[in-house]
Amino acid sequence: MFPEYDIIVVGAGHAGCEAAAAAANLGSKVLLITMNMQTIAQMSCNPAMGGIAKGQIVREVDALGGYSGIVTDLSMIQFRMLNRSKGPAMWSPRAQSDRMMFATKWREMLEQTPNVDFYQDMVKGLVIKDGRACGVVTGLGHEIRSKAVVLTNGTFLNGIIHIGEKNFGGGRAAEKAATGITEQLVSLGFESDRLKTGTPPRVDGRSLDYSKMEEQPGDEEIGGFSYTDTKKPLKQRSCWITYTNQTVHDVLKTGFDRSPMFAGRIDGVGPRYCPSIEDKINRFAERERHQLFIEPEGWDTVEIYVNGFSTSLPEEIQYEALRIIPGFENVRIFRPGYAIEYDYFPPTQLTHTLETKLISNLFFAGQINGTTGYEEAACQGLMAGINAHQKVRELDPFILKRSEAYIGVLVDDLISKGTEEPYRMFTSRAEFRTLLRQDNADLRLTEKSHLLGLASQERMDNVSAKKDAVAEIWQVLKEMSVDPNEINGFLQSIGNTPIPEKQKAEKILRRPDVELDQLAATLPKLGTALAKFSKEQIEQASIQVKYDVYINKEKELVARMSQLEDLEIPSSFDYKKIQALGNEAREKLNRIRPRTLGQASRISGINPSDVQILMVYMGR
Amino acid sequence: MFPEYDIIVVGAGHAGCEAAAAAANLGSKVLLITMNMQTIAQMSCNPAMGGIAKGQIVREVDALGGYSGIVTDLSMIQFRMLNRSKGPAMWSPRAQSDRMMFATKWREMLEQTPNVDFYQDMVKGLVIKDGRACGVVTGLGHEIRSKAVVLTNGTFLNGIIHIGEKNFGGGRAAEKAATGITEQLVSLGFESDRLKTGTPPRVDGRSLDYSKMEEQPGDEEIGGFSYTDTKKPLKQRSCWITYTNQTVHDVLKTGFDRSPMFAGRIDGVGPRYCPSIEDKINRFAERERHQLFIEPEGWDTVEIYVNGFSTSLPEEIQYEALRIIPGFENVRIFRPGYAIEYDYFPPTQLTHTLETKLISNLFFAGQINGTTGYEEAACQGLMAGINAHQKVRELDPFILKRSEAYIGVLVDDLISKGTEEPYRMFTSRAEFRTLLRQDNADLRLTEKSHLLGLASQERMDNVSAKKDAVAEIWQVLKEMSVDPNEINGFLQSIGNTPIPEKQKAEKILRRPDVELDQLAATLPKLGTALAKFSKEQIEQASIQVKYDVYINKEKELVARMSQLEDLEIPSSFDYKKIQALGNEAREKLNRIRPRTLGQASRISGINPSDVQILMVYMGR
Repeated sequence: MFPEYDIIVVGAGHAGCEAAAAAANLGSKVLLITMNMQTIAQMSCNPAMGGIAKGQIVREVDALGGYSGIVTDLSMIQFRMLNRSKGPAMWSPRAQSDRMMFATKWREMLEQTPNVDFYQDMVKGLVIKDGRACGVVTGLGHEIRSKAVVLTNGTFLNGIIHIGEKNFGGGRAAEKAATGITEQLVSLGFESDRLKTGTPPRVDGRSLDYSKMEEQPGDEEIGGFSYTDTKKPLKQRSCWITYTNQTVHDVLKTGFDRSPMFAGRIDGVGPRYCPSIEDKINRFAERERHQLFIEPEGWDTVEIYVNGFSTSLPEEIQYEALRIIPGFENVRIFRPGYAIEYDYFPPTQLTHTLETKLISNLFFAGQINGTTGYEEAACQGLMAGINAHQKVRELDPFILKRSEAYIGVLVDDLISKGTEEPYRMFTSRAEFRTLLRQDNADLRLTEKSHLLGLASQERMDNVSAKKDAVAEIWQVLKEMSVDPNEINGFLQSIGNTPIPEKQKAEKILRRPDVELDQLAATLPKLGTALAKFSKEQIEQASIQVKYDVYINKEKELVARMSQLEDLEIPSSFDYKKIQALGNEAREKLNRIRPRTLGQASRISGINPSDVQILMVYMGR
Repeated sequence: MFPEYDIIVVGAGHAGCEAAAAAANLGSKVLLITMNMQTIAQMSCNPAMGGIAKGQIVREVDALGGYSGIVTDLSMIQFRMLNRSKGPAMWSPRAQSDRMMFATKWREMLEQTPNVDFYQDMVKGLVIKDGRACGVVTGLGHEIRSKAVVLTNGTFLNGIIHIGEKNFGGGRAAEKAATGITEQLVSLGFESDRLKTGTPPRVDGRSLDYSKMEEQPGDEEIGGFSYTDTKKPLKQRSCWITYTNQTVHDVLKTGFDRSPMFAGRIDGVGPRYCPSIEDKINRFAERERHQLFIEPEGWDTVEIYVNGFSTSLPEEIQYEALRIIPGFENVRIFRPGYAIEYDYFPPTQLTHTLETKLISNLFFAGQINGTTGYEEAACQGLMAGINAHQKVRELDPFILKRSEAYIGVLVDDLISKGTEEPYRMFTSRAEFRTLLRQDNADLRLTEKSHLLGLASQERMDNVSAKKDAVAEIWQVLKEMSVDPNEINGFLQSIGNTPIPEKQKAEKILRRPDVELDQLAATLPKLGTALAKFSKEQIEQASIQVKYDVYINKEKELVARMSQLEDLEIPSSFDYKKIQALGNEAREKLNRIRPRTLGQASRISGINPSDVQILMVYMGR
């Protein structure tokens, strides 16, 4: 019934969809198996993509030729560039999506991808021969063969849903859990553990009083995630902000004795940085209130997502507490919040390609690796899909460095440090965040992906044009002399010191308060010279000129660090023989088997002295 | 957490959605409970509405103010008026819908209906006090109170899905079954039994070769289901026709020993008129081929519904058989066909309002009553919703006669005759099908619904305008003399006998081959007189004039039959005392408790002599 596939992707969430698309676009014959074809690319939690550090990841996924950015652009009901007032390293795009449209667009894009086949069934086990994954076995009893398998099971592996004292099996509310895979992998020697995540109640927007909340409209100018020319919406829907208060917290506390988390019914560790409301009032007892974002679920639905109010308390408590929140006096719950516990596999069991060390040609991506977040899942899916393709074609692995992408940081963190709680990306996790900006993901990554055969020629042409434009604009700024009487009026108007004599435009632009578009508006000759460039090109030139110094500093740092990063440790390296290493270092190095000295240095418990010992043994 | 509702509707399929909308629009406070808010108004089976007799039902639902017609119009990708070549009683609208859009539009319309609240949970039992339904108990443990309950559980009650030797619990593929309700109702004295239905495989349209099939495009002029002015699509998608053959049948037969139906693993009876392909080749062994309709699932999806190939044979057999069908040589299955067994409650346990006889204020609608088909479900939902509202407000029941609507035929058939296999509507079930046309459902029903407070004033105004227009057009035709030389050229051109002398236009129109629009095109004076009327009004006048004789004959028949139909039997009538009745008649009359002598006459096993005995006892 089934041909032999190159790659089988199990699960069709953010990770699975990206994995399937990437592998197929590279030329692999892919089968995407999902338990329910009606729920491909469901947003299980909040109807939004992006945000701080996460928005950068989506831009990186897009620059590499993934679909998440395009789908988000096509389904968004609101766009905001967060942190606009800070430096460009902090700018982070975020969009609210229409939940149904997001799923529909993803499915349409996958269907339009030749080489992606679909099949609806539950995968219950893997076919493994000689330590190598070569297919799956499904609930309906099919054995489907492939050259590699990518597992993206999300929260479905032995998922248990908790609401107060109630709990029942399920991969998401109203959906079945998946069984069999964990058990098989554990029998093969994999280590598995439990994690927990949660979601807030969804409520009836018709029951809310928005006059008691703060409106949070989208940006006046709608941006986007994709570097391609996606169609943006003409209007937007607002979100709203309201707050809990002490009385809300008191009501929530009355349910703590029935909380599955506090009563010990949940073993798994929850996401530290996306905690439940009961966690927040417990851990931050001094906080008088917590902010809630009231997010519409789509263009035409009245359903509302109460972001910030994730909870697994009994539903009556959820309701009683919600009712005290300003604007929620008459709230009607559509679906209660809940917690879900699921199996994950500590990611130190993976290599940099997201392939497992124990079973070759088996790749893991998304929550199965202990991460949280759509963006984190999507980028892992993309990388696993690419690397599964590379592996079955016997091509070089595709690995991004920490200095090249948040994706590189994420994968390296996961496999070197592991995680014992759901791992979320932050800008602070990146050493080189001035380099890893949302505006330059295309400049950083598209060429690499294009060389692989993934990012299209069109994308590559755009990147080349952008690079040329930046160089040309910079040249103009370097050469253009500005006379004091041309510019001092403007400088004084923004409270800046006037220039005493002629100065190059470049130098003026380096002032923190001066933007290139303002300069162009003030200096007609500059305006004329820049007329042929796009807004994006001008913005990019402006960022590069203004932050030149910082960028170059980080580039130097990267170069210095690369002494370690580029020192690859032979995979056959025998740590046990190095008596000079401490026991812990020997054990960890042997288990994680870092690819480079740089990676070795980031493993927790490895000291600088251990790294120096390794350098000696490697003949440096 | 929950207020007391007027009406709780359990299940959000075609029946539940119509019930919730109708009751809410009448002014009841309604809670619609569904196991999954993401699957409201899912088309579980084929992505189409209408067809012979079924299209008439949707028109009736629309005329009464239900939503199914509007939703179908808004989501259709193809429209066809079936049986155009036959008399207007046989004209039957049918539409292919975009499956996702159908569900989305339904949900939007419900959300825009004030008085409909939503809640996601499984209903596990009813709250019953003093023989009266007054709420439900949910899986999460909530007891929610109401004055009436409408159960529309579809195939979910103890649903078991079968594919070959495999079977597992489920209400639809990939969805959980519902438990608890049957057990409680049986303990209360309800009779319950099992039925079975099935669905064909869904396949990848990219794997089909349409050049080997016949194209079936939509009508050139797109019609619709709603009498309101809904927006129709500008383009359409074609369906395709192909056929099984003897080899396909032979392959299917190789799986018969593993068929859950033939091996006796399925107890429930399947739908006779929508049989599985294995049923068809078994029952109609002489047929060399069976027609298959290849239906797209939506505007932008490649998924295809193989209408006519419903099966629960092992999936390999489905696949091997499909591959021999012309155009399917390279077919890829997305989701296999399957059979599903579920609980239903023989509908003789209901009154004409779809209220149960055992428990007051408890209503059943849809597959729980043993019917099959979206349209059959929708109209029951509408009637149950209306009558639940009428009951809690202590208003008159709303009952349609067999002479007034297919809906009347359906309800009367169900409660008088019961059903032991999934009941489907046919034109042949109606005694007065010349009256029950798709073109006049508004003229038949809108006023009744408007008097209830359901059909809007706008609908009523349209009906009045249509009536006036028909009368006016008819008057024109009666008065207009047509000269032989004005018309004989046309008559001869269509092979008709010329008129020898002046004749009224009305008389010429009565000729079978002559249409009013043709007459108007031939006679300028008639064209001018009709210029101000809409196409629909002209068509209606034409039908009424041409079929005048038949219509009047049926009206006379209705009048004669009404002697029995209008004779209501007091609800306290004691059949046991009537010794003259046979045992079977006494038992059945006592169990079914017909509302009228007409209904009594239709109960299977009741002879005309029994009816005469009843007439005597009722003092006639």
